[in-house]
Amino acid sequence: MTARFVTFEGLDGSGKSTHLARAAEWLRARGDEVLTTREPGGTPLADAIRDLFLDPRWQAIDGRVEALLVFASRRQHLVEVIEPTLARGVHVLCDRFTDSSIAYQGVARGLGLDWVRKLDQLATGGRRPDATLLFDLDPAEARRRGQKHGRKGSGPDRLDAESLAFYERVRAGFHQQAHAEPERFHLVTTEDAVDVTWARVAEVLAEVFA
Amino acid sequence: MTARFVTFEGLDGSGKSTHLARAAEWLRARGDEVLTTREPGGTPLADAIRDLFLDPRWQAIDGRVEALLVFASRRQHLVEVIEPTLARGVHVLCDRFTDSSIAYQGVARGLGLDWVRKLDQLATGGRRPDATLLFDLDPAEARRRGQKHGRKGSGPDRLDAESLAFYERVRAGFHQQAHAEPERFHLVTTEDAVDVTWARVAEVLAEVFA
Repeated sequence: MTARFVTFEGLDGSGKSTHLARAAEWLRARGDEVLTTREPGGTPLADAIRDLFLDPRWQAIDGRVEALLVFASRRQHLVEVIEPTLARGVHVLCDRFTDSSIAYQGVARGLGLDWVRKLDQLATGGRRPDATLLFDLDPAEARRRGQKHGRKGSGPDRLDAESLAFYERVRAGFHQQAHAEPERFHLVTTEDAVDVTWARVAEVLAEVFA
Repeated sequence: MTARFVTFEGLDGSGKSTHLARAAEWLRARGDEVLTTREPGGTPLADAIRDLFLDPRWQAIDGRVEALLVFASRRQHLVEVIEPTLARGVHVLCDRFTDSSIAYQGVARGLGLDWVRKLDQLATGGRRPDATLLFDLDPAEARRRGQKHGRKGSGPDRLDAESLAFYERVRAGFHQQAHAEPERFHLVTTEDAVDVTWARVAEVLAEVFA
């Protein structure tokens, strides 16, 4: 089977990272090679851009600057890690990719889908994953879970300070894309216990890696 | 008189920074308010992107990633500093701007003029200075001068390691633009002593700030 590029999207606290780790175990258990990675970041340079991007000092950061930094990080990650890994026949599971930029910068920050898609075309040539699992959860619940689990083990970053209304717009942005590309998107509701959700994820994986 | 946005372009070592400082003195002596600034950089965030961009660790940096970082820095500088300063009626003299991206990334790195111009359109809306002074010098001589004067007071950055052939392409990229926009560009040859060159610069300034 050709190596697959699969992305895990959703709000922080939606469970995407937990299920990405389980999905990697699931693939390894059946003997497949798999690389897990995340955005923004994934290479030393991309990680440095990520740190810059999330620094709470930049309250005055312009929305387009934010998007340009994210796509700089993404392209470095794509050309240095993702594409060479797939070329070696190893699956890539990635925590966030371009769909996050469309939801966060294009929709929630109001830059517009058209602007973000043009930038994506210049930065990645419009590269799309083979499949995308969208973890869907009410933003208030996602925030509660994120705080409870202290997901980063450090203080709040710049995006943690955004309002719930911002995250409602992000969620709407994800729904809009899932609706536009139903073949690629697999919507996974995550309001139930983690094992119930995992059963759904495993069904999707069985289909994607058939 | 409306505030003017004037850029100083050319290779490092070409004398552009020296003459920019003199130009600011010249404007202040006649009672004009002026801000001097430089790219990449010009705001705390843009400076942080500049430091990232010039870090010698990234030997494997992709050409498009380099361009995305430069334009992220440029947009922040433009919206946070340049446009508000001009709106207050203060002239802005800027050491490098988009023409450098076209010469360095578009021509010398081979990304293509079309790609860089599309990115410029997304990042700055295609913003052009009112006038541009292009300091023209043979790259070998520019390098000799840069080393002699130790312009940064620190070790070599990532771009200092490029070959002379690279800087020949940069120079050709600048010439190409000057040829395409003769109204905006003012070519200043800098092979003579600094006071001879300054006399030429002063002539151009008298015309630009007439």
